[in-house]
Amino acid sequence: MAVSVTAALLIIGDEILTGRTKDKNIGYIAEYLMGIGIDLREVRIVPDVEEEIVAAVNALRQRYTYLFTTGGIGPTHDDITADSVAKALGVGIGYDPRAVAMLRERYPENELNEARMRMARIPDCADLIENPISKAPGFRIENVFVMAGVPAIMQVMLDSIAPTLETGAKMISTMIEAEGIPEGHYAEGLAAIAAGEPRVSIGSYPSFSASGFRNQIVVRGKDAAAVEEASAAVRALLGRLRGDRSPL
Amino acid sequence: MAVSVTAALLIIGDEILTGRTKDKNIGYIAEYLMGIGIDLREVRIVPDVEEEIVAAVNALRQRYTYLFTTGGIGPTHDDITADSVAKALGVGIGYDPRAVAMLRERYPENELNEARMRMARIPDCADLIENPISKAPGFRIENVFVMAGVPAIMQVMLDSIAPTLETGAKMISTMIEAEGIPEGHYAEGLAAIAAGEPRVSIGSYPSFSASGFRNQIVVRGKDAAAVEEASAAVRALLGRLRGDRSPL
Repeated sequence: MAVSVTAALLIIGDEILTGRTKDKNIGYIAEYLMGIGIDLREVRIVPDVEEEIVAAVNALRQRYTYLFTTGGIGPTHDDITADSVAKALGVGIGYDPRAVAMLRERYPENELNEARMRMARIPDCADLIENPISKAPGFRIENVFVMAGVPAIMQVMLDSIAPTLETGAKMISTMIEAEGIPEGHYAEGLAAIAAGEPRVSIGSYPSFSASGFRNQIVVRGKDAAAVEEASAAVRALLGRLRGDRSPL
Repeated sequence: MAVSVTAALLIIGDEILTGRTKDKNIGYIAEYLMGIGIDLREVRIVPDVEEEIVAAVNALRQRYTYLFTTGGIGPTHDDITADSVAKALGVGIGYDPRAVAMLRERYPENELNEARMRMARIPDCADLIENPISKAPGFRIENVFVMAGVPAIMQVMLDSIAPTLETGAKMISTMIEAEGIPEGHYAEGLAAIAAGEPRVSIGSYPSFSASGFRNQIVVRGKDAAAVEEASAAVRALLGRLRGDRSPL
């Protein structure tokens, strides 16, 4: 019986919503979690507004095994993630001595001003997530993992979190090129295959470029035999359609 | 008095949540809306699951001036956006004669099978959004705009929607390079400027590359004079800090 471990991702930051910064974390985290057997079920992007962050954190942490957040843990006034997460969870927040020690590795005493000390504000009883690049740590509290928004830092934080996560059965997927067969020709057959095998999900993904449409069919599931059986049925369907078609 | 017109974006599709397809629509739409004076306030990504789509559509359409969706309007069984939106709004759905006519432009009669006809299923009383690339239309119902997920098609749909939208005062923004001054040095001064000018929002955006950290400060607002005043204060702050600093 395949166990399902689920996750949500919350991206925090005005800069993504204005288009100023193009997000690079969603695709990376989605693929990473898929690779270790965690199902990413929802993503939200909210602005640097406390009540929005609190509402999203509470909606998502209660619904999924894990909630990952990125962004808003730097030293400036718009970095309000730690305080918002503490508020969402109803816990206190203060300067964490371990986080202060990490910042001291980077900043000489006379450089560790009030703004930088903000990066040592950590909700009570949280575990820290190390940041080998710029030292200011992320943290985990209950099932919420708070990471930096800068992709290079988020990525090393995710690497250090990953071994601590409960993971489910890995998703197995196969991709089958429809090679010129239009979606509308195989859609009915595909629906029948999908309806007959509830252990897999089957998607059809058209893409469009200068050379025209390209359709890829992806069969996903946690039961290898079911995925293989459904994939074989898809290949057979495409084979029949190729036989049927009048030449291009 | 600057009028605020707000929007949310709902991205529908398993392929984004598994990382198989890297989203290209969020950044494009965010920048586009910002450019025409609409504030994108929230983004959600949900899977191809009816109850998830219905819940997200209802949460977002009631909260913002407009809701834009992308994805899930093709001919295959996992394309359930139109039915889910109809359900969310409590309206009927059926084959729309205008949409059928559009599909007939693309497909000869004997090619317009049941699966393709799915693309002509449109909620009652919706307006269609033309798709000059592959014909299958998007639609607008109340304040919900349903677009294709394929970026090239979404982009032309957005162009045709834009003139019909109510727009607010445009956001004006200035970007000021901190040129080597660390965030921790200007954070306190920046917070004071932000606190003193509620008509602007000020963000500090570090990025990290092989050549080290780079910090950019962005001042945004709808009142040009307020943006200019706050930007001047930020430049003066950075100037003072440059003067203070010991040489690198």
